[in-house]
Amino acid sequence: MTRVRVQGVGTSNFGKQSLDAVDLVWAAIHEALADAECTPADIDAIFVGNVLAMPGTAQRALLAAGFARPPVLTLENACSSGTLAVHLGVQSVLRGESRRVLAVGFEKMSDTIDGPLPPDPSDPESAAGMILPAIYGMTAHRYMHRYGVTAEQLASVSVKNHRHAMANPRAQYRGEFSVDEVLASRPIADPLTLLQCSPVSDGAAAVVLAAADLDGAGPVVLSSEFESGAAWPARDDRVWNYELVERVAGRAFARAGLSRDEVDVVELHDAFTIGELMTLEGMGFFAPGEAGAATQEGVTTRGGRLPVNVSGGLLSRGHPLGATGVAQVAEVTWQLRGLAGERQVDGAEIAVVETMGGNVSGLSGNGCVVMALARDGV
Amino acid sequence: MTRVRVQGVGTSNFGKQSLDAVDLVWAAIHEALADAECTPADIDAIFVGNVLAMPGTAQRALLAAGFARPPVLTLENACSSGTLAVHLGVQSVLRGESRRVLAVGFEKMSDTIDGPLPPDPSDPESAAGMILPAIYGMTAHRYMHRYGVTAEQLASVSVKNHRHAMANPRAQYRGEFSVDEVLASRPIADPLTLLQCSPVSDGAAAVVLAAADLDGAGPVVLSSEFESGAAWPARDDRVWNYELVERVAGRAFARAGLSRDEVDVVELHDAFTIGELMTLEGMGFFAPGEAGAATQEGVTTRGGRLPVNVSGGLLSRGHPLGATGVAQVAEVTWQLRGLAGERQVDGAEIAVVETMGGNVSGLSGNGCVVMALARDGV
Repeated sequence: MTRVRVQGVGTSNFGKQSLDAVDLVWAAIHEALADAECTPADIDAIFVGNVLAMPGTAQRALLAAGFARPPVLTLENACSSGTLAVHLGVQSVLRGESRRVLAVGFEKMSDTIDGPLPPDPSDPESAAGMILPAIYGMTAHRYMHRYGVTAEQLASVSVKNHRHAMANPRAQYRGEFSVDEVLASRPIADPLTLLQCSPVSDGAAAVVLAAADLDGAGPVVLSSEFESGAAWPARDDRVWNYELVERVAGRAFARAGLSRDEVDVVELHDAFTIGELMTLEGMGFFAPGEAGAATQEGVTTRGGRLPVNVSGGLLSRGHPLGATGVAQVAEVTWQLRGLAGERQVDGAEIAVVETMGGNVSGLSGNGCVVMALARDGV
Repeated sequence: MTRVRVQGVGTSNFGKQSLDAVDLVWAAIHEALADAECTPADIDAIFVGNVLAMPGTAQRALLAAGFARPPVLTLENACSSGTLAVHLGVQSVLRGESRRVLAVGFEKMSDTIDGPLPPDPSDPESAAGMILPAIYGMTAHRYMHRYGVTAEQLASVSVKNHRHAMANPRAQYRGEFSVDEVLASRPIADPLTLLQCSPVSDGAAAVVLAAADLDGAGPVVLSSEFESGAAWPARDDRVWNYELVERVAGRAFARAGLSRDEVDVVELHDAFTIGELMTLEGMGFFAPGEAGAATQEGVTTRGGRLPVNVSGGLLSRGHPLGATGVAQVAEVTWQLRGLAGERQVDGAEIAVVETMGGNVSGLSGNGCVVMALARDGV
């Protein structure tokens, strides 16, 4: 069976910026191709993750970068659009349809929005205010009530990820904040404050994936799983999407033959602080209700037992929707190659990436991708 | 080798309407499932074509229709988004990954635009006015100059497709227009007048595709080809996208083992009148420069030798971007099953569908899908 290797990765800087989408994509592609030591002619197919751009934007960047006409599939799966692009690239190589593919994610959010994704006018609950910050806020209240988790524990996710981003020169935001400062930042959707919400971001990321028998080096994909989710029942005793994350992660660990305690570094979907906690628990790293205390104790900080979002995560590196999942794969690739500079997790051999894309209202469909990777030779 | 059958099809009405996207999708899915005599539980995967909707819209409709959690892939490939969804569904069944899939296309354009797709601000040529009507207009001038094609011949495409739509109760527009009336309608991008441009449309379409060895009836897919295009060189002696259409259609005919004169009915991408002519020639149905005269002579009218766009085409049935390609497949399925009512092409046994998706400026990437289908048992 062919395995798939990440041969090269690249990203733009993240944050609101004047570069347009084509320039951002070009920067990410250029770096990824150079990193993989290949040219556009070596790429058999291209998978693009994007949510908001006008049709053809990615193709314009690809043509500017010298691609002639490989097939381009542009996927939209909300926040996990980029991870889905990587996942489909992996599948394409595994099936033998392609030998080497490019997965690209990008978003120029600042062109179209300056706050949360707007309500879907055709969804009465969304139109009435049930948009993502509100759903995450309600989820957080439920979670705090159910498990006795505290506002301080939630805030400690933000403190950690902003601190992690201090070592990431491409991050959108970074800084040393105290728990009190996080809690005192502007209220967005109680109990979530501004510093607990991912920002409006522009950015792009790209990865080159190749059959492991081709020349080249880089981490190997141990498993990649995708599932579209059912509606959130809203009356479930567990929080939003918990069940979907649990199921997809369970399959990804099983396929990879990994136990949770073999994982050295995790990039996961912390669009809001509550998201990181419930995802860690859904993925089986902590028992329900225990991720908050673990975060407070430094378990998920770089240097701790299970470093989570050492890039800064969506909260601090930024969350340009389509780019996010591809940037997560880029980050763990740097980690597994020992190239993450000041934010390197020592001796990282096994990494896991998770992204969950809910729709605007969150109350209906969503999708989740979980991927496990190993250092080359492990 | 498994073959793929279209087991059932459905569409909404087309045209600006108050139904929201979820209702439109629901109508199309409901009809397609009933037509295929199957339920959501019989569907292994879902492929969605859409350009403009908010994330999750299709999933909301799918959940409303009773789907639990099959994988949903949402594709964006401009005007050929829907055909690409069908193409990927066909590939999924051919590969044996799925036994029965649903392809859905939809668009609620009237929610977001009331004229041509707006310029891409990051593309200087687009921002300066080089948007789709302008590109098609320039293409038309070049074509008329090169081949001596007349404005009356261009207009005859509109006359024919509006007349065809008289027999399509779900079409957005229909009517008996004279060539003079078409030419006298409001100028949009010289030489193209209002009645030569496809409208802003809302609509949805769905098809159920299944392995041909499953119980069920319906046309068989003989071939389905997709390619992403290079930039239009603008200095090419041939018109925009001619080369891409030629290449993809050539492969689709070769794979199907068909000659052009075996085709009984064609649904193709007439976003503008010039598009129908150049596509007919690019596909090899007519020599360069000859499709206009053939149209004027009635060759492509229902009852003629090669009926083209008997549904009314994009010009008259409407062009809800993501829905268009799926609606084309639905139309030829009705034709091949003898269920097209007043617009039935007698004895139709072989059909071809073509959709070309260019980006907003048209000057960079695009993609084309061509598909050949045969009546069950042929």
